[in-house]
Order: sequence, then structure tokens, then C-alpha cells
Amino acid sequence: MTRISYTWPDERIAADVAEVRRRSPLVHAVTNFVAAPLNANVLLAAGAVPAMVSALEEVGSFAPVADGVLLNVGTVTTESADVFRYAAKAAQEAGTRWVLDPVAVGAGLSLRDEVSADLLAHEPTVIRGNASEILGLAGAAGGAKGPDSTADSADALPLAIELAQRTGAVVAVSGVVDYVTDGTTVYEVPGGHPLMTKVTGVGCSLGALIAAYVGVLDDPLRATASASAVLALAGERAGATTRGTGTFAVALLDELSTIGLD
Amino acid sequence: MTRISYTWPDERIAADVAEVRRRSPLVHAVTNFVAAPLNANVLLAAGAVPAMVSALEEVGSFAPVADGVLLNVGTVTTESADVFRYAAKAAQEAGTRWVLDPVAVGAGLSLRDEVSADLLAHEPTVIRGNASEILGLAGAAGGAKGPDSTADSADALPLAIELAQRTGAVVAVSGVVDYVTDGTTVYEVPGGHPLMTKVTGVGCSLGALIAAYVGVLDDPLRATASASAVLALAGERAGATTRGTGTFAVALLDELSTIGLD
Amino acid sequence: MTRISYTWPDERIAADVAEVRRRSPLVHAVTNFVAAPLNANVLLAAGAVPAMVSALEEVGSFAPVADGVLLNVGTVTTESADVFRYAAKAAQEAGTRWVLDPVAVGAGLSLRDEVSADLLAHEPTVIRGNASEILGLAGAAGGAKGPDSTADSADALPLAIELAQRTGAVVAVSGVVDYVTDGTTVYEVPGGHPLMTKVTGVGCSLGALIAAYVGVLDDPLRATASASAVLALAGERAGATTRGTGTFAVALLDELSTIGLD
Repeated sequence: MTRISYTWPDERIAADVAEVRRRSPLVHAVTNFVAAPLNANVLLAAGAVPAMVSALEEVGSFAPVADGVLLNVGTVTTESADVFRYAAKAAQEAGTRWVLDPVAVGAGLSLRDEVSADLLAHEPTVIRGNASEILGLAGAAGGAKGPDSTADSADALPLAIELAQRTGAVVAVSGVVDYVTDGTTVYEVPGGHPLMTKVTGVGCSLGALIAAYVGVLDDPLRATASASAVLALAGERAGATTRGTGTFAVALLDELSTIGLD
Repeated sequence: MTRISYTWPDERIAADVAEVRRRSPLVHAVTNFVAAPLNANVLLAAGAVPAMVSALEEVGSFAPVADGVLLNVGTVTTESADVFRYAAKAAQEAGTRWVLDPVAVGAGLSLRDEVSADLLAHEPTVIRGNASEILGLAGAAGGAKGPDSTADSADALPLAIELAQRTGAVVAVSGVVDYVTDGTTVYEVPGGHPLMTKVTGVGCSLGALIAAYVGVLDDPLRATASASAVLALAGERAGATTRGTGTFAVALLDELSTIGLD
Repeated sequence: MTRISYTWPDERIAADVAEVRRRSPLVHAVTNFVAAPLNANVLLAAGAVPAMVSALEEVGSFAPVADGVLLNVGTVTTESADVFRYAAKAAQEAGTRWVLDPVAVGAGLSLRDEVSADLLAHEPTVIRGNASEILGLAGAAGGAKGPDSTADSADALPLAIELAQRTGAVVAVSGVVDYVTDGTTVYEVPGGHPLMTKVTGVGCSLGALIAAYVGVLDDPLRATASASAVLALAGERAGATTRGTGTFAVALLDELSTIGLD
């Protein structure tokens, strides 16, 4: 197992940030209504174009034109379950790279467990979650408490590696250190800030950012690591100048929207 | 009728703030999509863990593990009406304290009137609304204009007391002065700021905050009053340093996330 | 064709801003969940009262009491398609002015194309979109890339004029310069700021603002132009003091909520 410590400043990250801005990826996000506004703003800040089309009649036609797709099951409902399934199938068939964010999977909530298992069969390019969710998706008892993680990202790493090897997906585990692995190599992304867990949708926004990065960058593993490093950097910078969660969230978008423009 | 004027600084409020931070209540909120991001951020700022699971298949399994539940009918739809009914039933059966926020009830909108009446039968721990909504729920002509209140909280107090006596719930009426009553005692909570009515979801966020407070504090009446006092304090402080609604909303979260941490 | 350059400072705009604040229009918005929080906050900042009732059982009873209605198909679903149709029918029958925002129409997404065509039959007072959407609605190949516009507002003007003449609606095309036309007169509204396209929901918020303005002002053409000029001014002012998209969005609401209060 190759381990790479990956953090700003790094020419590779800077190059990926610039390339994403230059390519302006169209990201189709089927995401939860709590995180949706922040998800969209994070994508815009990164230079991407978000589209949050969520109709069964429409998600199929989006997959072939989108650069990347995000499927986040945070507020999946009886009515939207098939929207997710159909969007995953469409992305797989179109060969469009897509990200699975299995929010709160493994916490004893039946519908998202079922839907996420179905989605997994459509070969996501990347699976992103906190330790509890990755453990949950891998079939372990994760101890998830809602969308919050009670497990440590380092504890989830062995199962994340196994999940990557079994599915062929890049697996990203968020935590104090983010781990990004394809089952052979592990990028370790330190940084970030504790306030990132105190603003709703920040974790989900990493999923969105990854969809933008893998959408236009060649290597999905490095692209996922770069997206993680960019968000960690923005969080670190935002946390250095703010104390409350309100100004932190605002500063996070400020940092994301100006990184690489200096 | 005992009347208690309840405002910061007060050792009871400070103790409740600290206890909620220490216990980190898991709050299951089925809420409207307009207020959802702010609701979640207010819960996080207070030290709680929000979960906004909204699937009929999932709400039942959440009630037993959540500390508190919020049911806010602001954007109830044909599809979600049963989600609310089922979540209320599950909370009642599990003995989990829950808050009913009957947004715009009594304004002539049939579905929310019906659903709220159904929910009322499942014994909410707390009913929170503005004067028009409380009058509407109590069966009076409230004159509600959308989610806005055209009635005064003092005018609604007699019917709020009657509603508390009839249902056994704590009733919280928001206004220039907030009133919180169990039918025997009335907490009067002054403070707040006019800009609180100019940011979407602030009233709904009080419902969320109450769900967190009653979820882990012993006395639902005092817990509801403390949640009201905390939001009023945050609003007052935010209003003292800002003029526009954008910075006010940001400052409100800053204050909520730092109260009690000094 | 009469052309009017329309930009702040202008006594007509100032008078309209003041009148909207004085009348406090109730705006019923059926809008997408990504833009909903910002839409509501923009309406509140302008002195309007937003209501985002979205149930099939309820939208009909809202049209007669609302001053203005916004129908934004951004995240239309199988379940909500009829909500839009019914809301448009109810607004038409009640004689309530309403705004159609055909988000991403013409981009090859079947449901919104169908629904928007149905809505058009119910005589919207105003149609608002970016160039791609107006071209799409007018039946041309718009080249829309999600909700983003790849066409220029000036390019769409001829078809916008034709659309206004054919439907009787005021047509507003957003771009570097906004054009507002009834088919006879064209208001040209310059200003704004590039960051307005980097915050989600700003374009949709113009639709909401227009619904408030046409709801209580006599002349729909001028009201639409005034709403556009107010948002352009707020954007320009916000852009002058901020660099990142986070603070820009906050400053935009600050400006909107204080314009005309000096």
C-alpha cells in the first residue's frame, strides 16, 4: 500500500484547481434539500456549473451531457428512490463518472440502505462518506448517529480499502484526516477545521466537489484527493479568521471561490 | 396563573445552554425545504445533531433513537402528509418528546389544517407558532397571512393557555414578547429583534431549537422557555451589530454557536 | 420599438421600491428547493411576504389571496408537475398576476419543457429567464447548459419581443444587460455584477422579486423593469465591497434590505 501525504501547497492540487476552473464541469447533482443550496454554491465557487434536476423523466437525459454526477441519498423518499436508481443506471450506461454519497447508511434506516446497495451495483466512480457511512456501506456496524460520524476515519480505512478493491471505486473517508484510496494507494489529506462539522452540508459539498473534479480530470483517485485537499484548505483558512458558524460558512465559500485566482 | 419574566442573563438559561451542548441531542426534523438549511445550522450551533430523514419507510425507525423530534408542516404535500402522521405516531409510541410547528394553520389552507389536527391527536410535547397559527390551531379566526403573523402574541395568550390545558402540551407563542405556557405557568420572554421576521426560517428554527432542548432537559416548560430566551438573545445581539438581513442572519448563527462558550 | 435605458438612480425605481415596501405584497412562490431559501430572503428583504405552499390541495386556495405568484420549474418532479399546472390555472382564474420562470427549458429535459408549455397557456403576466431559457421557450435551439446561459441576452431580444407579442406577457431576459419588453417597448437595465452568476438562486430570485413588484404596482412592464434594476443595483453595490461568493451573497441581501430606507 502506497501512502501519499497530500496537502496544499502542492503543484498537483494547484494544477487541478486551475483545470477545473478552465473546464467548468457541468455537474448533475441529485442531492438532499438540506445541503442543496450549499452544494450548488460550492460547485459555483469551484468554477463548476450545478444542475439539480430531480425528475424521473429528466435524470436519464442528463447523464450523457453532464461531466459528473452526484447521487446523495440524504433525504431519499419513496417517490425519489427510483430517481436515484435511474440516474445511476443512466450514468453507468453513458460512461459518465459519478459519486455516491451514502448519507447515514448503516444507521438502521431501511430505504437508504436498500437504495445505496442498488446504486452500488451501477459502479460509482467514487464513494464518499464519513467513517460511519463507509463502515455502514461496507456492511459493518458503523454506529452512525444520523448524518454524524461517531467512528474515526482511520478506523474505517481498512474497510475503505477493501470496499475500493471489491467495487473498483475510489473511496473517500472524511474525518480529521481524509483518506482517499483506490485499494492500492492511499492519499492522506490533513487540514480542515472542526467548524466544518458544525455547518450543515459541508460533507455533502465534498461529494459535489468530487463530482466536479472527477468529471474533468483524468485520474479519479488524484482528482478525489485534490477536491478533498481544496475543501480542507478552505476550511482551514476560514477557521483561522472566524469563530462562529455563520461567518465560518461564509468564509468557506469565499476561500473556495478565490483559491487559485491569486 | 404564575407569570415568570425570563431573560438572559439568568443562571437557569445558562445551565440549560451548557447541558444541551454537553448532551448533544439527536434531533429528527421533518421540516419545510425553505427553512431546512437554517434549521439544521441552528441545531448544529446549539450543539445538537440534526437529522432530516423524510421517507415514510424511515421516520418510524428514527423516533426511538432520536432525543427530540420536530414536525413542521410548512411545505407539507400530498406525498408527505403521511410521513408527518407516521412520525408523530412513532414519537408518541416511543415516548420521544416532539414539537409541532403548525406553519400557516388557520389561513384557509386545507391540507395543513387537516394534518395538524391529526398530529395534535398524537400528543405533542410542545406546540410552537406565531399568534395567528396558535389562534388557527385553537380553532379561532387567526387572520394568518401566509406564514406571517398579523395577530399579536399577547392577544393569543388566553387561547394558548386554553390549548395547553386541553392538550397537555406546552404552548409557545412567538411575537415581540414570546409566551411559553403549560396552562398553569406563563414564561414571558422579551428581547429578540425585528430583523428576525425578515430572515426566512427563524421562527421555524425556534421549533427546531425547542426540540433539542426538550429532548435532553427534564422540564419541557422551562426547556421551551430557555430555547426561546436563547434565540431572543442571539437575535438581540445580532441586531445590535448589523443592519441588513444578510449579515443579520450570519450574526444570528455566530451568536447561537458561541453563547455559553465564553 | 421604444428603448428606455433604466438604471438607478431614477425616481421611478425609487418610487416603486417604496411602494412595494409600503404594500408588503404576499407572494406565493412554487419554486425549486435549491433557490427557495434565497428566494424567500430576497422577498423579505424587499418588504414582501413569501409563502411557499406547494401542496396540490393548497395552491388553489392561495391564488385568490396572494398579490403575486411565482412558478419556477427548476426542480419540477412527476409529483409536482400538476401542482404547477393547478397553481397557474388558479392564478389565471383569480386574475392574480403571475411570473413564469422556465428554468433550463430548451436544454433537452422533457418534463419542464412540457410543463412550461402547459403553464404558458394560462397567460403569465411575466416570463423571466436567461437568454437560453427564453430562446428555449420561444422554440429556438437555446444551447442551455443546465440552468446556465450560454447565449447572450442581446441575441435573445428579437425572440423575446416576438414571445411578448405572441403571449401578451412581459418578457424579461437576464444577462450582462437585462432586457424587459412587452413587445412594443424595451427597457434596458445595465449594472449587476459577474458574481451574481456565481451564487445559486440569484436569477430565480429575480423572478420572485418580479412577482412582488407586479403584484402591487400598476404597470407590469415598468414593475418588471424596476425589479430588475433593483437587483442589478444590489449586485453592483455588493460586488464593489466583496471578492468571494460567500460575502457577496450576504452583501446582496444587505443591499436589497436597505435600498430605499436611507
